[in-house]
Amino acid sequence: MTQRYRIDISYDGTAYAGWQVQPRDMTVQQKLEETLAELTQQRTKVHGSGRTDQGVHARRQVAHFDLARPRSPRMLKRGLNALLPDDVRILRATRAPADFHARRSARSKQYRYYIWNDDIVPPFLRNYRTRVRRELDIEAMRRAASYLRGRHDFAAFAANSKQAVEDTVRHLRELQIKKHGHEVVLIAQGEGFLYKMVRSLAGWLIRVGEGREFPDDTPAVLESRRRTSRVTTARPEGLFLWDVRY
Amino acid sequence: MTQRYRIDISYDGTAYAGWQVQPRDMTVQQKLEETLAELTQQRTKVHGSGRTDQGVHARRQVAHFDLARPRSPRMLKRGLNALLPDDVRILRATRAPADFHARRSARSKQYRYYIWNDDIVPPFLRNYRTRVRRELDIEAMRRAASYLRGRHDFAAFAANSKQAVEDTVRHLRELQIKKHGHEVVLIAQGEGFLYKMVRSLAGWLIRVGEGREFPDDTPAVLESRRRTSRVTTARPEGLFLWDVRY
Repeated sequence: MTQRYRIDISYDGTAYAGWQVQPRDMTVQQKLEETLAELTQQRTKVHGSGRTDQGVHARRQVAHFDLARPRSPRMLKRGLNALLPDDVRILRATRAPADFHARRSARSKQYRYYIWNDDIVPPFLRNYRTRVRRELDIEAMRRAASYLRGRHDFAAFAANSKQAVEDTVRHLRELQIKKHGHEVVLIAQGEGFLYKMVRSLAGWLIRVGEGREFPDDTPAVLESRRRTSRVTTARPEGLFLWDVRY
Repeated sequence: MTQRYRIDISYDGTAYAGWQVQPRDMTVQQKLEETLAELTQQRTKVHGSGRTDQGVHARRQVAHFDLARPRSPRMLKRGLNALLPDDVRILRATRAPADFHARRSARSKQYRYYIWNDDIVPPFLRNYRTRVRRELDIEAMRRAASYLRGRHDFAAFAANSKQAVEDTVRHLRELQIKKHGHEVVLIAQGEGFLYKMVRSLAGWLIRVGEGREFPDDTPAVLESRRRTSRVTTARPEGLFLWDVRY
């Protein structure tokens, strides 16, 4: 009888073309599917809570998959960690009910965007922090963030897609900005996010912090519901999928 | 007139065959010498405060070099950082008196050895922490460390060299063990260290912490003045040259 499993995964996205399987380059999903096939001698599709882009990391991503011939979660965790490269780690493996779905069952997600606000990024953090040289005005960023929190149409902060009409209303429950030393962290939490939304929010907030945009222009940008070049997509290396709640 | 310079450098040792120039593989010293030649159109030798092995990192290494045709320290720092790969960063560049010598003028050095005491190392730390799976007995390690602090003949904790008689007495001013969560850090400070001494001290302390050796056997090992297989050389990735004082 087919058994569904949930795995909690942590990965360094530096060497991967993102989460989702694609024709040319190695992705985290593909690496997991290949390793599961090698370990269990069964082909299965791994469904993540959502995709992450090239160079984006996951402190904790959640995924599910089915096995026609069940294996113990303990063996799956051990076996996967033994076979996977050390930039992908299985934090936890459990049996899941048949109706558990990593994406559809998710109640909320947290992302963190890490900025290093200095000329020189310590070498050990180079793949995990986005460098911003100009000194950021944290109070201006917090003021801009205050307009973004809550339920809004975030079309102005989504990837400019040529897709047909899509619901671009999202509830951004939390958008905090913390600073310790040269490190500035944006913490975003919500039920769901549009494609590239966190990097777009980070791009806008960085421009505000650099003094290139006024924080009080945020409502007008939001209300325009049109993505323009004023909202940049911040670089991927500072972004972490931090947690998924069910 | 020849001008001497001091540079403070931070590097991720993962991709380098250590500090010191060697025939085949790229080293940090060689990378710096090549980049300085490219930037200043002058060949110069870069003298470090000491070598670090393959895979060992430096939070702060110090080096000096001479230029026959002087350049401003500001230009050197900016130019080197622009040309160097981002796993090597120049933290500071200053003019130094002609008698400043990165190795001979050093008054003390601090090393830190970082252990991740758990089954799974977070992917972001994989190159910067040595994994130890068995739970470490920190109090046993501290007891062993108490015998190692001070002025001793550390021949039992040096690389097994076939060299002629060499002075193997060193003054280990500090040897602390700190733990936060899964992270265990060994902090060693002294005027000077023998080759592979910190990794050998770490190797012994880890074996004590794992319960494979008794902490009270430490004085006998030390007094034997002979390197044996009881003292292992801990892996390089957890080791950081932390600071050099002048």
